[in-house]
Formats: sequence, structure tokens, C-alpha cells
Amino acid sequence: MFKAAINAEVFKDAIEAVSTLVDEAKFRITKDSISARAVDPANVAMVAFDLNAKAFDTFEATDGEIGIDLVRFMDILGMTARDDRLELNLNEETRKLEIRTGGLAYTLSLLDPGSIRKEPKVPALELPGKIVLNGAELKRAVKAAEKVSDHMALGVQDKTFYVEAEGDLDKVRLEIPESNLISLQATSNVRSLFSLDYLNDIVKSLGKAEQVTIDLGTDYPVKFTFSIASGNGTVIYLLAPRIESE
Amino acid sequence: MFKAAINAEVFKDAIEAVSTLVDEAKFRITKDSISARAVDPANVAMVAFDLNAKAFDTFEATDGEIGIDLVRFMDILGMTARDDRLELNLNEETRKLEIRTGGLAYTLSLLDPGSIRKEPKVPALELPGKIVLNGAELKRAVKAAEKVSDHMALGVQDKTFYVEAEGDLDKVRLEIPESNLISLQATSNVRSLFSLDYLNDIVKSLGKAEQVTIDLGTDYPVKFTFSIASGNGTVIYLLAPRIESE
Amino acid sequence: MFKAAINAEVFKDAIEAVSTLVDEAKFRITKDSISARAVDPANVAMVAFDLNAKAFDTFEATDGEIGIDLVRFMDILGMTARDDRLELNLNEETRKLEIRTGGLAYTLSLLDPGSIRKEPKVPALELPGKIVLNGAELKRAVKAAEKVSDHMALGVQDKTFYVEAEGDLDKVRLEIPESNLISLQATSNVRSLFSLDYLNDIVKSLGKAEQVTIDLGTDYPVKFTFSIASGNGTVIYLLAPRIESE
Repeated sequence: MFKAAINAEVFKDAIEAVSTLVDEAKFRITKDSISARAVDPANVAMVAFDLNAKAFDTFEATDGEIGIDLVRFMDILGMTARDDRLELNLNEETRKLEIRTGGLAYTLSLLDPGSIRKEPKVPALELPGKIVLNGAELKRAVKAAEKVSDHMALGVQDKTFYVEAEGDLDKVRLEIPESNLISLQATSNVRSLFSLDYLNDIVKSLGKAEQVTIDLGTDYPVKFTFSIASGNGTVIYLLAPRIESE
Repeated sequence: MFKAAINAEVFKDAIEAVSTLVDEAKFRITKDSISARAVDPANVAMVAFDLNAKAFDTFEATDGEIGIDLVRFMDILGMTARDDRLELNLNEETRKLEIRTGGLAYTLSLLDPGSIRKEPKVPALELPGKIVLNGAELKRAVKAAEKVSDHMALGVQDKTFYVEAEGDLDKVRLEIPESNLISLQATSNVRSLFSLDYLNDIVKSLGKAEQVTIDLGTDYPVKFTFSIASGNGTVIYLLAPRIESE
Repeated sequence: MFKAAINAEVFKDAIEAVSTLVDEAKFRITKDSISARAVDPANVAMVAFDLNAKAFDTFEATDGEIGIDLVRFMDILGMTARDDRLELNLNEETRKLEIRTGGLAYTLSLLDPGSIRKEPKVPALELPGKIVLNGAELKRAVKAAEKVSDHMALGVQDKTFYVEAEGDLDKVRLEIPESNLISLQATSNVRSLFSLDYLNDIVKSLGKAEQVTIDLGTDYPVKFTFSIASGNGTVIYLLAPRIESE
């Protein structure tokens, strides 16, 4: 059983954090939250999504899981206006999700959760660098890097966080000293290289966050953590590094 | 003879009501009005367009008819600014329409009216349902329906007007009770199915109308009627139903 | 040696005047200015660009020349925000141009000036017609002309400046009498025909100028002159005529 109401914009922004990486996902519902764990088809990026019942105006649920085609779901959510209220109701008999907003009633067929890729385990990472900054700042760096290359390094050197992309001809570098970051801790210099394809997807959602925590190592996966729904939810992205050839 | 001046935006909106269905049309001009009747190439939709001389700042005309390539005409009208004044002058000798606006003079070659498809007769329909609502409401329903299907039902059931689209997987339904409509009369429940391709074209123009009257039957053509040019003109669309297979 | 700072928007608008015609250009730098002369690959249009050191917040330079890939350069300049400050620094050793703006540092590889097409000589033209008008007016005429044809005539007849485009079917004409121009001098009637492909590129930049001077003859190249960077720079376009076949 699942029956809830929420601001349409808040919910759309939340679901987008998952849909930007995968086309379908299994959502676990409990009496307190909705959550999802998913890996992209190429096994390069992982998302862990948790949305607390507090983000909703009303929320009644018993334990269960539902499979959602995120492309069709985002299509429907895209029709909603900024301040619309969204009502969600799981019809257990038909296995369809009823979505009501602005007088319109959508009935979305659910996917068989068994047909969706197994949820990954989110690995516990102990990384030497931890940077906290505004999401828009990182988004701007990714957009700049795309102009010159298809991969980008994130690093910390001498208490300065940097982002660097090097193409065949041109180079982009953004340096943010500790004083301009929300915070920076690094027990050593670190640097890892990532695919801009994935970073570009990730910053769509992450770029809206006031505060993003980056856990960074050297030639190691990076972990991005940020809040959604005014603090009533969390998104974590893990992104595997690319090998730096020099 | 035809010589007239009108607000560019008003005229563009009026002509768009025809151009959205057909690429060329024969316009009848009298001393009191301009009108057109046209059927789309597939014989599915019909438009009846009447624009009164009162919609114009100045209007001098004798009886006649002109053939217009609506694609080229809309292209030119699209260049005008919101508050531009448009001057139209038919050059009888060259059989060209002179269009002046914002210092620019366009000379549009007319089509031979004999080469344009014969004007249809607008059938008189006596339909059991009559719904009056805001055009934007109907436009929103059509946009939502397009997300899930290529056809859409319009109906009245128990004093409630509804719009419904069902795809292979998902479904959209909009219900508007009598209290939220401008008016509703129905001597019986009605329901007909229509192509969203056509509805999508039709709502481009109809979606701007404050008030649209829908005459509806069961498995019968629907008739949409609305005013243009601040009440100085009328547009009627007739749309043939699709067969409902269940 | 070249080291300068300038408002990002001013610089982007200035460089666009060149990039709209050619993909790469050789810029001459002196202690007082940056300038470029370039011809498009088909030898139809020429641009002469001069940007005075006064347009810059700071400007230190010794004589030299640099080859720039304008496509990549405009791509980078396109990332800047309206009020960003742009810092340019030529690294003589690496032959790269360092561009700093909003915390981002771009390193742009320069082209070998020897590999770029030789700079043209700007011919001295003595033309019988001289028209001065607002650039936006000319841009509007070009946009209107594109609807009906791929070439456009510029002319002066009886103290009236006109622009005319004639397609197979339709025609556009804009007439501006002397009283509505900033100024008009013509020792005789003149008229030349030009390719709208080129005019369309040219008005991208010229359309922003308050005041454009057109030097015009009969079946002769046209010369457009206008200021950039609040009067601290000049752009001249020369465009070869097309033969009028009648």
C-alpha cells in the first residue's frame, strides 16, 4: 500500500536525480521513506536515493517495492506546473501507479521489479579528500571542461581544490582555494580522472544543490553527496575513475 | 477590390486558425467580411473561418475570392511585431496581395482559386452534448494525452465532461464536473474518439480562446466553436471520429 | 608580449564581428591595438577589425601576431557571463593564450600565423552613395528578405534608401526616406545585388550597432562601417556584388 501527496516540483527534482543515470529503477517503499539504488548499464556510475516521508504532505505506506520506467514517469512529471500538488496512489490490484495533478489523472503501468537489474551494494569508501562546495560551481566547471575534452580531473593540491580538463589542443582549469569553499579536508594531495559524459548527467541534479560533499581519492571512485527536498532526502552518486594515461 | 488595415497580431492569430489545418485556402471577400471553408487533405477535419469587417481598422472590399498559400503567408505574418499595423491591398491587375507593415512591403503572389480544393459544405449537426469551457483547459488535456497515446476520447458521463487517452501501458484522464465548466448540457451520456494529431493542430488556435463550445455525440464528429478577434470573428472546427476498437 | 583585461561581453561582441565570416584569423597586436584583416574562403566578403587599447581595462603589448581558431575561441567566450572580467595573457614560450574569467583558466593553443590565409588589402572605394542608419533596421530587412529569396538589392533612388528581395513568387521591399535615416548622400541613383547568405552573417554583428554607414554603388561592392566597444573599435565589412540577371 502506498498513497502520498507532495509538491510536484520537489518530487520531479528528486526523481530526476535517479532518471539522469538509469532508465528504469526499483523503488523500495517503507512506512518512512522511498529509496532506490541503481547502477548505470555500463557499471560506471551508481546512485543511492533516499526520500523521507517528511518531504511529503501526506504519506501512508506499507513495505513494498515498485518498478518504474523513469523515462515515462519523467515525461508525466514534466507536464506538471511549478506549484502543482501531486497525488500518488499505488493500485495493488492492477499494479499501476495513479498520479493525479491539476485535475489530470495518469495511470502508469509498473514494471515487474524482478525484471529490473539487481540493486547494487553501496561500497563504504574511506577517502583522503573531502571537499564541500556549491553545486552550481561544479556544474559550471563541468560545462567549461566539455568545451575542450571528454574527461576531467578532480583534485586537491596544497589546500586548493581544482578541476582540470585537457583536450588535444586546449585546457581548462578551475582552482578554488580553501577560503572559497564551504570546507576542505585533505590528508594528502589527491587526483582522479572522470568521464565528462557521466559528470554532465550528474551535475543536472547536483548543480541545483546548495551544498555538495565530494569524497575524493587518487585514481579512485569519487562520491558526491547532497540533500534534496529541503533536507528531507539524500542523493549519493558514486563514479568510477578513468585511467590517466600520460 | 480589397483594401484593409488591421492589428498584425489579431490578423496572424485569425489566419493561424486556418493554416493549422491546410496549406492553402480560398478566401471569400465581401464588403462585410472575409471567410474561408477548408478540409484537410485526408478529409478528417474541416474549418469554417469568418472574420468580420469590424475586426479591421479600415476595410473596403467588393465581392471576390483569392487563393492564398498559407505557409508563405504565415511566414510573412510571423515577421510582424506584436503591435504592428498591417495593411493589405489586393492588386487586381497583377493578382498579388500587397502587405505593408513596419515600413516593409511584401508582395505575395496569389494562387488561382480554381486550383484550390473545392470548399466543403459545413454539415448541420444536432448533437446531444454541448460543453463550454476555457480553451487552455482543453489544450492542457491534449498535451497530456499525447504522452501516452495517439488518440483521445472526449465524453460526458453523469454531468461530468471527461477526456481520456489510453496507450498500450499508460492512461491519462481529465474529468471536469459541471461546476468547473462554463456550461454543460447533455441529454444523454456521449463519447467519441479522435486522432491526437488533429487535436494537437486544432488546440494551437483554440487553446487561446477564453471560451470554446464543444458539440459532442457518440461515435460522431465533434464540433468546436470559438470567437476570434475580440468577438469579431468565428472559427468552427469539425473533426471526424475514429472507430473505437475494444 | 600581450597581457590585457576587458569586459567579457564587449570582447565577445568584438570578436564575433570576425568569427561570423571566417573560422580562423591572424590578429596583429601592437602597443595600441589589436587588429585583423580576413577574407572568407569564397573571396566574397572581407572584414577589417580594429580594437583600440582603450577598449581594455588594462593593455600591455609589444608588436606581434597570433593565429586564432575562432570557433574554439568563441566557444570559450560563450561560457562567460555578461559582466565577467576577462584576462588575456599570451604565453610566449608555449605559444598558448591563457584566458581567465570567473575563476576558470582556459589555455587556448594558437595557430601558426604562417598557416593562416594571407591578410587581404582593404581596397579604397569611392562610391556615389552613402547611407547612415540604425543597424537593427538593416537586420530586420535582411530577415524579411530571407523569407522570399536568397539575394537582396540595396539601392538609393530619388533620395530614398531601399532594400529589395524578389523570389520566384513573392517580393519584399523596404523603403526608408532620407528623413528617417541618420543621413543620406547620393550623387546618383545606385543599386547593387548581394547574397543573403553573407548579409545574414554580417547583420549578426552589425545589427547591434546604433549607427552603420553603407557605402554603395551600382553593381559594385558595398562597404559597411560601424563602431564596436563603445567607439573604441571599428569594423568594416566589404561584400562583393552578385550579377543581376533580368
